[in-house]
Amino acid sequence: MTAHSAFARNQWYVAAWSAEVGGDLLGRTVLGEPIALYRTGEGRAVALADRCVHRRFPLSRSRLDGDKVVCGYHGFTYDTTGTCVFVPGQKRVPRTARVGSFPVAEVDSLVWVWIGDRDAADPAAIPRAPHLAGEGWTTVSGMEPVDCDFGLLVDNLMDLSHETYLHGGHIGTPEVAETPITTEVDEEAGVVRVSRHMQDAECPPFYARSTGIEGRIRRRQDIEYFAPCLYLLHSRISPAGQDAPLFETEITYAITPSAPGRVYDFWAVSRNFAVGDPEVSGFLRDANHTVVMQDVDALNVLQRCLDTETEGYQELSINIDTGGLAARRILARLAAQ
Amino acid sequence: MTAHSAFARNQWYVAAWSAEVGGDLLGRTVLGEPIALYRTGEGRAVALADRCVHRRFPLSRSRLDGDKVVCGYHGFTYDTTGTCVFVPGQKRVPRTARVGSFPVAEVDSLVWVWIGDRDAADPAAIPRAPHLAGEGWTTVSGMEPVDCDFGLLVDNLMDLSHETYLHGGHIGTPEVAETPITTEVDEEAGVVRVSRHMQDAECPPFYARSTGIEGRIRRRQDIEYFAPCLYLLHSRISPAGQDAPLFETEITYAITPSAPGRVYDFWAVSRNFAVGDPEVSGFLRDANHTVVMQDVDALNVLQRCLDTETEGYQELSINIDTGGLAARRILARLAAQ
Amino acid sequence: MTAHSAFARNQWYVAAWSAEVGGDLLGRTVLGEPIALYRTGEGRAVALADRCVHRRFPLSRSRLDGDKVVCGYHGFTYDTTGTCVFVPGQKRVPRTARVGSFPVAEVDSLVWVWIGDRDAADPAAIPRAPHLAGEGWTTVSGMEPVDCDFGLLVDNLMDLSHETYLHGGHIGTPEVAETPITTEVDEEAGVVRVSRHMQDAECPPFYARSTGIEGRIRRRQDIEYFAPCLYLLHSRISPAGQDAPLFETEITYAITPSAPGRVYDFWAVSRNFAVGDPEVSGFLRDANHTVVMQDVDALNVLQRCLDTETEGYQELSINIDTGGLAARRILARLAAQ
Repeated sequence: MTAHSAFARNQWYVAAWSAEVGGDLLGRTVLGEPIALYRTGEGRAVALADRCVHRRFPLSRSRLDGDKVVCGYHGFTYDTTGTCVFVPGQKRVPRTARVGSFPVAEVDSLVWVWIGDRDAADPAAIPRAPHLAGEGWTTVSGMEPVDCDFGLLVDNLMDLSHETYLHGGHIGTPEVAETPITTEVDEEAGVVRVSRHMQDAECPPFYARSTGIEGRIRRRQDIEYFAPCLYLLHSRISPAGQDAPLFETEITYAITPSAPGRVYDFWAVSRNFAVGDPEVSGFLRDANHTVVMQDVDALNVLQRCLDTETEGYQELSINIDTGGLAARRILARLAAQ
Repeated sequence: MTAHSAFARNQWYVAAWSAEVGGDLLGRTVLGEPIALYRTGEGRAVALADRCVHRRFPLSRSRLDGDKVVCGYHGFTYDTTGTCVFVPGQKRVPRTARVGSFPVAEVDSLVWVWIGDRDAADPAAIPRAPHLAGEGWTTVSGMEPVDCDFGLLVDNLMDLSHETYLHGGHIGTPEVAETPITTEVDEEAGVVRVSRHMQDAECPPFYARSTGIEGRIRRRQDIEYFAPCLYLLHSRISPAGQDAPLFETEITYAITPSAPGRVYDFWAVSRNFAVGDPEVSGFLRDANHTVVMQDVDALNVLQRCLDTETEGYQELSINIDTGGLAARRILARLAAQ
Repeated sequence: MTAHSAFARNQWYVAAWSAEVGGDLLGRTVLGEPIALYRTGEGRAVALADRCVHRRFPLSRSRLDGDKVVCGYHGFTYDTTGTCVFVPGQKRVPRTARVGSFPVAEVDSLVWVWIGDRDAADPAAIPRAPHLAGEGWTTVSGMEPVDCDFGLLVDNLMDLSHETYLHGGHIGTPEVAETPITTEVDEEAGVVRVSRHMQDAECPPFYARSTGIEGRIRRRQDIEYFAPCLYLLHSRISPAGQDAPLFETEITYAITPSAPGRVYDFWAVSRNFAVGDPEVSGFLRDANHTVVMQDVDALNVLQRCLDTETEGYQELSINIDTGGLAARRILARLAAQ
């Protein structure tokens, strides 16, 4: 069995898309913490510890009574702060009856929760992805749970040379694997930037069909990874040899460790062209979902392989891994803090 | 991982309904002991250790030759005492060739087996449920295996306030959770009694449709739990403000620990009204099966939650838990003996 | 949990039927070693370690480019020796970039791999089964993975008295279990021979329908087990009281430990009669597959039973087990070497 990557507490993590949190309870597990999410009548997102104080039944399997959560087993009832306000069979509610709550911040259509010491929770520290809900942009999105260490998903996203092999015929072309990258690391800020600029490349179906470009393209991939959770791929496409027209696609991932060996893969594709075209939205949603599921399948397989390694296993890293190795280093430092 | 509740040996446990034991072998596991059950031509129930002495193939996957069990792998053949009387390829049967057998007592249409020191097995100690096979009563019954510690099923049955939340629309109404209970514990005898008398309550569909009462009811729930295995709920229903007509329903559960994290939930509903009415029988069978499956689902979920607790977890107990806590105390004492 | 039988390294094991190894990658695990198998354009079988040197993605989930394996994740490319000849994003291939390869020998339509010290690999040591691809013989074959310790499959095949009980109505008749065996053990060579000669026996459907014999038969079963992997059952059938016509059926098993608790059950039925008759081939393929699946079901069940034994468990061995016990002794000696 492989040891899993250590979790970094005292950090913000994406627990859900804003659209997932509404008038029904949603259960998620972040860094091993079970969380019940819902939205109050006034529209505020709430995140409570997902275990009733009585017998530990999951509140996410319960129902809402207005803004209060009524446990589905014996009816213990909690307000938005996690304070118990009703118990069955008696008038007095024990003073210690309360469940934990998590600081929540809703930014750019993502619901972030803070895991750790709540006094240290500062929403200003949340990295931004303004295109997700910005004027002039259209976004398609989804989430897939993956049965692998979150570190494998970080590796996957930091090194896009895999597009050529795992996602050939969708977003990969030979030039992605062939073109060297440049990497920039801000260890202090916990940010890794990886860029690959292809001057004359085949146009994969993902971009050909969404932009309408025929023929070869200039293609730029500029990754910004804000450890531990937010990953942005700034993708710029124009016809080969031209700077215009320029098609900007922002591809967002949030990488949220769920439990040891499990990670949530939140994904979105935002574009500033054909913004009102439902056919382009439908195509990009299906195409990116296909690509994500190729990653999910590969990572599930890879994790099962690693789980059978009886001893520590060896890797061999090359230039393409510079960004991924920097990300690992930063994640290890955050976990150790 | 949660430690499981300790098993109490030297006790009688329900292994099957009488109707389940017949001319075919039935495999059950009680307190971790695999058992093969069958009935002889003369009608006597037999319980043998469910592992062939040769290579440990389960005898419950074998066939009967008259009153003898013929192992389905190599034909080792056992009589009703577990003595091997035939082996393949040679005339001589080794003297040590025998499998264990378990004391069996068939009482009130339940097949009880004794797990422990067989000299201590006294059928007179088996608690009775005479309504199950009594004159003037009709019974519907079933069994569901649950993937949880048997202690969670004991908790569930000792505190019926959960009827309001988990079984609303079936047997639960607001009054069950609201009405305080009285609890009586006979530590020595290992019996816990919990009563809840509702003078004026909504009539849930379970009773409205089986009794024909329209309007509100007087409803009495009197639990008797004979640790470790037998649970009786004496349910009495009459129209609100009246003592008659009185509808008596006896709800029986047998709680048999199977293996760590697994329990058999034997259930029955007996009534002394509409005893010859197949429609009422069909309704009550379906209705109680639905209720049991709501418990099974909740307990499976709860156990999976507890299994992810990395450290010991805390509970908060209130008045409704008095009976359940007494039951746990008695079970711990029986296990320690 | 049961400890699994120790694996014997420095031995040849069957990894595949020749017909399974072609222009697509095939993944197998032998003695816990993941192996990717394929065939070069010139027809040579190749066995590489099934983990890419970069991030350990399984090469068996990759694709071939001529005789080279291109990893399906990031494109690391290997030649038939396991040497890496291409990596993405750079010209220089690190000198340490290579995966292990396994000695392969293709004999009698079986693909054997050597697990252990490659200098000790001598194809001349591979035991032969010439009927599998021999002139005048027709063979039907298959492979089933079983979720049990390989030792349970060895036990199963060394003691055919189980045919009477587990395979009754297919290949078993009462005489198989009744007739004593003779056993011969060559400890040095690691060969066990078990014979059972029935002079006047019922003819099971397997032989009645394939040979056309009506009435009772003379039936000889002569097992040769070449530890650790190859098992031959020389089956000879003629009408009772006659030596001719004589129907020879060679039943071959290769028993390949895959991982702890998993074994590959390669099987074949070869005959030197009705060699061109597709109906007989189809019947024998279906009939033996049915028999193998009865073994698979029984062994899966048996292993699950053994896995629940909390302490070491006891067996009781009799004459029929002489061959199986000898096989275990030899296997333990080979594993200890």
